[in-house]
Amino acid sequence: MAKLRVHNFAVSLDGYGAGPEQGPEAPLGLGGPRLHEWAFKTRFFQTMFGGEGGEEGVDNDFAVAGETGIGATLMGRNMFGPIRGPWGDEEWKGWWGDNPPYHHPVFVLTHHRRPPIPMEGGTTFHFVADGIKAALEQAFDAAGGADVRLGGGVSTIQLYLRAGLVDELHLVVVPVLLGRGERLFDNLDDLPDGYECVEFVRGTAPVAHVCLARRGVR
Amino acid sequence: MAKLRVHNFAVSLDGYGAGPEQGPEAPLGLGGPRLHEWAFKTRFFQTMFGGEGGEEGVDNDFAVAGETGIGATLMGRNMFGPIRGPWGDEEWKGWWGDNPPYHHPVFVLTHHRRPPIPMEGGTTFHFVADGIKAALEQAFDAAGGADVRLGGGVSTIQLYLRAGLVDELHLVVVPVLLGRGERLFDNLDDLPDGYECVEFVRGTAPVAHVCLARRGVR
Repeated sequence: MAKLRVHNFAVSLDGYGAGPEQGPEAPLGLGGPRLHEWAFKTRFFQTMFGGEGGEEGVDNDFAVAGETGIGATLMGRNMFGPIRGPWGDEEWKGWWGDNPPYHHPVFVLTHHRRPPIPMEGGTTFHFVADGIKAALEQAFDAAGGADVRLGGGVSTIQLYLRAGLVDELHLVVVPVLLGRGERLFDNLDDLPDGYECVEFVRGTAPVAHVCLARRGVR
Repeated sequence: MAKLRVHNFAVSLDGYGAGPEQGPEAPLGLGGPRLHEWAFKTRFFQTMFGGEGGEEGVDNDFAVAGETGIGATLMGRNMFGPIRGPWGDEEWKGWWGDNPPYHHPVFVLTHHRRPPIPMEGGTTFHFVADGIKAALEQAFDAAGGADVRLGGGVSTIQLYLRAGLVDELHLVVVPVLLGRGERLFDNLDDLPDGYECVEFVRGTAPVAHVCLARRGVR
């Protein structure tokens, strides 16, 4: 069975997956980049953005695992870009330049339809306005038997957690306090029940990798 | 300078330091004991409660460190007992039996005065109704130059964090989801600013030990 997986999702010690005041100048919110310093240091992320070097080790292994066996990505509209409401002139094509680091179909949840955008390198952005289940079905179809990665941000993960559709959740606990922002484990009508910790590892950087899986999934 | 230190304070992955519905039958709240399984396994806790055996290693070292250099303990009234409001017949003398595992003066924050209770083994419970700063001063005086440990629960730690009085905070991140309960990093008017992570270690059990210190303190 193909799975819906969250990978490399960093949360602060006080539970925030993004800082406050997200916008074009601060896509991760104030303080948000501190959640991702561990990732930026890895060889995987350095290579992804055209750099050289970067560290190998546990953190890099987890970064790589987030790509393995993935055939499509799902994300919320706010992860795709800072525009709210109608798309306007439709010039916005994501944060990632002409050749986004996906190289497979990406499904963006939105209330505003828009034609697909084929990009260089195999990424095509599809815009789904029919709800989270329709988006997931389309992503599974496009993945052709491989797994689907749920990107983010926080509110999108909450939508899928509330619907009980997340099979695996890899979090990275970062020992910083953000104080404000978007908390991952908020707005969950019921607790995300039925998950068990299947892996808990100290990273190369001072972080902890925590893998949760729905019982019976892994 | 003597310090105010929090030790071995366990929080769930979703940030809860105690489960919901705390009371005489569930002093740690529903699900709360899951936060402390790592501690119960240590030699330190086994010995404290008159048992034998228990594990040595990282978790035990942290448990022991929570006693080292401590001359007095501060705690909230709800950690002392389940009684709310006036003390009634004053028979309640804490959860810990005739010989509590403190062996030094313990200061209990309360709105209801009560004479001190000397116990076996060197513990005396003092009840302070003059606010958190007065309680801390009395604890420092009683500690005679040694540090003061801030026990809990969640709301008591929040009081001292809000007042900027906590020097060191050792948390134990436990990869369980409680869904409800008392969140440690809530009700903080401002973020607990100025802390840095000075230690981040994977435990013997699947937990992470995170030590935060106010900058310049350690």
